[in-house]
Amino acid sequence: MKTSTQTMRALAKVRDAPGLALATVPVPTAGPGEIVIKVEATGICGTDLHIFNWDPWARGRVHPPRVLGHEFCGTVVEAGPGVRVPQVGEFVVGECHLACGHCHLCLGGQPHICESLEIIGVDRDGAFAGCVRLPAGNAWRLGRSIPVEVAAVMDPLGNAVHAAHSTDLTTRTVAIIGCGPIGLFAIPVCKMAGAALVAATDVSEFRLDLARRMGADLVIDARRDDVAARLRAATGGVGVDVVLEMSGNPRGITDGLRAVRNGGWVSLLGLPTGRLEVDLANDVVLKAVHLAGIFGRRLWQTWEQMTRLLRMGLDITPVITHRFPLDRFEEAFALLQSGQSGKIILVP
Amino acid sequence: MKTSTQTMRALAKVRDAPGLALATVPVPTAGPGEIVIKVEATGICGTDLHIFNWDPWARGRVHPPRVLGHEFCGTVVEAGPGVRVPQVGEFVVGECHLACGHCHLCLGGQPHICESLEIIGVDRDGAFAGCVRLPAGNAWRLGRSIPVEVAAVMDPLGNAVHAAHSTDLTTRTVAIIGCGPIGLFAIPVCKMAGAALVAATDVSEFRLDLARRMGADLVIDARRDDVAARLRAATGGVGVDVVLEMSGNPRGITDGLRAVRNGGWVSLLGLPTGRLEVDLANDVVLKAVHLAGIFGRRLWQTWEQMTRLLRMGLDITPVITHRFPLDRFEEAFALLQSGQSGKIILVP
Amino acid sequence: MKTSTQTMRALAKVRDAPGLALATVPVPTAGPGEIVIKVEATGICGTDLHIFNWDPWARGRVHPPRVLGHEFCGTVVEAGPGVRVPQVGEFVVGECHLACGHCHLCLGGQPHICESLEIIGVDRDGAFAGCVRLPAGNAWRLGRSIPVEVAAVMDPLGNAVHAAHSTDLTTRTVAIIGCGPIGLFAIPVCKMAGAALVAATDVSEFRLDLARRMGADLVIDARRDDVAARLRAATGGVGVDVVLEMSGNPRGITDGLRAVRNGGWVSLLGLPTGRLEVDLANDVVLKAVHLAGIFGRRLWQTWEQMTRLLRMGLDITPVITHRFPLDRFEEAFALLQSGQSGKIILVP
Amino acid sequence: MKTSTQTMRALAKVRDAPGLALATVPVPTAGPGEIVIKVEATGICGTDLHIFNWDPWARGRVHPPRVLGHEFCGTVVEAGPGVRVPQVGEFVVGECHLACGHCHLCLGGQPHICESLEIIGVDRDGAFAGCVRLPAGNAWRLGRSIPVEVAAVMDPLGNAVHAAHSTDLTTRTVAIIGCGPIGLFAIPVCKMAGAALVAATDVSEFRLDLARRMGADLVIDARRDDVAARLRAATGGVGVDVVLEMSGNPRGITDGLRAVRNGGWVSLLGLPTGRLEVDLANDVVLKAVHLAGIFGRRLWQTWEQMTRLLRMGLDITPVITHRFPLDRFEEAFALLQSGQSGKIILVP
Repeated sequence: MKTSTQTMRALAKVRDAPGLALATVPVPTAGPGEIVIKVEATGICGTDLHIFNWDPWARGRVHPPRVLGHEFCGTVVEAGPGVRVPQVGEFVVGECHLACGHCHLCLGGQPHICESLEIIGVDRDGAFAGCVRLPAGNAWRLGRSIPVEVAAVMDPLGNAVHAAHSTDLTTRTVAIIGCGPIGLFAIPVCKMAGAALVAATDVSEFRLDLARRMGADLVIDARRDDVAARLRAATGGVGVDVVLEMSGNPRGITDGLRAVRNGGWVSLLGLPTGRLEVDLANDVVLKAVHLAGIFGRRLWQTWEQMTRLLRMGLDITPVITHRFPLDRFEEAFALLQSGQSGKIILVP
Repeated sequence: MKTSTQTMRALAKVRDAPGLALATVPVPTAGPGEIVIKVEATGICGTDLHIFNWDPWARGRVHPPRVLGHEFCGTVVEAGPGVRVPQVGEFVVGECHLACGHCHLCLGGQPHICESLEIIGVDRDGAFAGCVRLPAGNAWRLGRSIPVEVAAVMDPLGNAVHAAHSTDLTTRTVAIIGCGPIGLFAIPVCKMAGAALVAATDVSEFRLDLARRMGADLVIDARRDDVAARLRAATGGVGVDVVLEMSGNPRGITDGLRAVRNGGWVSLLGLPTGRLEVDLANDVVLKAVHLAGIFGRRLWQTWEQMTRLLRMGLDITPVITHRFPLDRFEEAFALLQSGQSGKIILVP
Repeated sequence: MKTSTQTMRALAKVRDAPGLALATVPVPTAGPGEIVIKVEATGICGTDLHIFNWDPWARGRVHPPRVLGHEFCGTVVEAGPGVRVPQVGEFVVGECHLACGHCHLCLGGQPHICESLEIIGVDRDGAFAGCVRLPAGNAWRLGRSIPVEVAAVMDPLGNAVHAAHSTDLTTRTVAIIGCGPIGLFAIPVCKMAGAALVAATDVSEFRLDLARRMGADLVIDARRDDVAARLRAATGGVGVDVVLEMSGNPRGITDGLRAVRNGGWVSLLGLPTGRLEVDLANDVVLKAVHLAGIFGRRLWQTWEQMTRLLRMGLDITPVITHRFPLDRFEEAFALLQSGQSGKIILVP
Repeated sequence: MKTSTQTMRALAKVRDAPGLALATVPVPTAGPGEIVIKVEATGICGTDLHIFNWDPWARGRVHPPRVLGHEFCGTVVEAGPGVRVPQVGEFVVGECHLACGHCHLCLGGQPHICESLEIIGVDRDGAFAGCVRLPAGNAWRLGRSIPVEVAAVMDPLGNAVHAAHSTDLTTRTVAIIGCGPIGLFAIPVCKMAGAALVAATDVSEFRLDLARRMGADLVIDARRDDVAARLRAATGGVGVDVVLEMSGNPRGITDGLRAVRNGGWVSLLGLPTGRLEVDLANDVVLKAVHLAGIFGRRLWQTWEQMTRLLRMGLDITPVITHRFPLDRFEEAFALLQSGQSGKIILVP
């Protein structure tokens, strides 16, 4: 691929060790079927923190030097050969999952679980930079009606919408386990889908406060309360119809499985580390519970749903608690590590 | 409830200890909304073996004296007040799960997962006897076209049909983990639903032979082979579309989760003892797999499907390997314990 | 059946001719499995008007003398032998469709489309009377938190909920064709299910005003406007995702089919008189549209959904425009005939 | 677009009048994202006959000169810039519907009902020629295991599979109305999906004979028999669970709607000419029937299903009754017009 002689600043994993660094790299250029986007805002994800910390997963997957950043929006500044849409000048949001287009899942209408998925900012250079290169087919054309900071975090908002919309929520009772940004986003998404009750649980006071601000009907502090008992009490002893597991925490998962009613639905989005113990007989089989693994965003059903929700008035701005320019990234990552934040925006 | 002065022989848990005994008990009579069935044949279930062995689950659930037996068919000999159907003289099969009719699940069309379920032969006296009493609404009217021994085991056949029909199988590849009677029944059920491949796995040569006789396209001995690897090889590296987990065995469950493709479906019917370790992140969330707990039989969709399958030519008779009169029950239970049997019929 | 020596006043079709009359009839008594309800309020339905007018359908179906009235609520005053619930003193709403309980549809979980359905107030004596007799299993136990007038019209509210909830409405655009009480009820039901747009159309100014009061985002007067064109314009040229056809009017049906987008969903609830012309090729096949006939209420899923919606704040009271005591029935039916009413309540 | 200096023979509508002609045209060349396929076999479709006859629909849609032919297979002989798959030398089948890739339906996973669909052989030059040009993304890679004549007609086979697989057929009773090639293909497709009964009806003895050969359990001559009555009799008076309407004939549609049971499913694939009368109240609303318009083939779910069915042994060759070289096209079209054929193959 031809590269530009121009350079830009980028936040990158530059060597096989913890931490990140600001680097000067060539501005990318668009090959056939590709576009280059001038980045306007990005979000920091838990995945970025894993790479920052250089944990075993990150060491096995990421090959430095690598520019990070997979939640982003911006303006198309270059369109490569054969690209009909989007056009130069259009405002777009990036879908960071690059599907191969040829495996049985891509052909079968499920490119979001493509067998050869690559991720921007993980497997290819990402958006913590002035510009980012993307297949044209991975750009969601949004128009300027959505605020830039909101557009920048439609990737995790999409996780929330995908998890919530994976079953019918109208008149249902819902428990959201884990109030990170995705769990917090899910609160109004469930309310707008007509849920009768949206309960949220976490172990951080900061996050429980955000859950209240996002409109949770019931907020449970999992450090102090028996989550399953509280949820049963709130549902006349029956248990909740739907659980959205956003924590990846073994106790959170157990709480969710105990709290769901016979025949209920559990969307599993949180990623536990390693194997964990489950009481499959009592919590799944005998209760005839459905567990649905949730990954990424449906292409492009979830994006269409998100866009409509935002136009209907979905307000996720309370979750966006901090903003930093790119060169204050150390501060941003330290804050994320502390747990005293919602979603943090980085502006390149 | 009024009881008859007539007596009959029944196989019962007569005291709080391992083993069963032939007892002489009153012939039951039909109360309002109830029928009495003269039992023609019964099947022995793994649950009966748990009660025979008096394991912790059985000790916690069953209150002696209790007549066992929940897989059965026979002729209606008495119909209580208010019973319109079935009529005296009709041949019927018993659905052993007694739903309350008033909880939110019964009212919501899911009585098979009723919150207050009672089970014939566990919570009330069962069918290892000359006669058995049953709510009229728990009798499936079958007609005489189905052989008595087949009718007697429609309860476990229904488990197989419920698990198999819980997702669309047409042109799909299926792996059945565990070749007890339910797993064996599932083999032709999947074939008749249009599955492209039906693989079956077990650790018993006796059962693997039965799997071959029932028409499995691929039979895998889990003692010798890497089940997930064999299933991937048989599906072009992709993994199977559907897993029917019938073993309840930790390794079987792990094999099934590893063998299923991204976006695939796992019906969980086998009951593991205690908690077990699952790699939820890699085997469920990141693969976007759907796990469905399967319990009982849908009332009465599963029974209608079974009846149609039997009329279409479904032949489960190779799975029925042994028959005993009631007084040779010790022999029958010893054989079941040995693993050298398919389904065993007891004739009262 | 044994009858009481007590008498009560009832509004009935007393002879084979147009009109109704107040009659004095015996108070019903409860047989096995039945209850008697002291009626607190009833709703008048379009079906009652057909019987009042004695049109060809009514003449073919109704056999005088017959007490009318199938939308009702009240208190249980007698419970026959074998009735466990509801108990005497409980406040209940009647489901007027009596399923046989034994046909393949009842057994298959679809009693609302039973092959041998009978209707209270049409095929058996109804609730325009002091008391009404009902199978115990046709009573929905509601508690006293819902106003009596609202409880009285849960039958048509259930039609609206059944039609609306038959497909996922979250973020969808919806057009409701016909603003009789059921269409009007459907407006807030769709909004509460998360619809992005709820448009309503009718030919009566009175009803269009009610549609505005019920919260329709767009109200179209079908006498003056091209309904399909207006709906396309409101949806960026695409057409609406979902149509709820509540009019039974040939032009309304055509408007709905033209307005729905490719791959959209049409719930058909309105009953056209006689055969009507449809452009199946262009409006259904080539657009891959789904048409779903909607009848009655799902037992009891729809009732559970309605109850939850009412507890969540669904307010249908603006649709209840008039109340009459039983002896002013002539006035009530004349008003209904005029089209200048929403739902009319009769109090016996 | 650059064109070749080489020429080839093609069957085309050369002027605004009935009939077709063999013309000499330039061999197409592949632009960016396109391939050129050397055609090995093609099928003649009813649509081709409409264009041959130059009926009103054809005159409004087709702009001469236009090479016809949209059912085809062959070998890739050229791949344009940016094409990764298929590669030159691969055997492929063409999907003749060209989706835009950018409308809300393409983005929403339903490109088969794209709002701006173009059709090969109708809106662009087709495959009744030595070579045909196609977007690379419209080629289904099949391998050589499927016979060329079968591969050539996977387009209409896909219509049959799409219509049949649009609802669950396992243990269901099915009536196929209309035994043209698509209806005939549907017979074994339904059997392989586990249908309990597959009935087929037509008005042509030739086609009814083919229906018998394809394995229909019940063949009804609609000229002599009351189709709905026969189907009710064959289903114990209940009516069929599923109707596949393949005729587009008003009487066939009425027969199908009358024959389907309460709560049943009707796939509508046949295209009636003009508006037709339907008894929506009695045949759809009151019976709670579901009508699904079926168009094209799901991309690529239907193709994957078809390929699996063919590998599982689906044999459609009895439906392929005649073969002609391109220059005997007059004979082929006259035969198709006569109704005395199944599918006719043209070999360029």
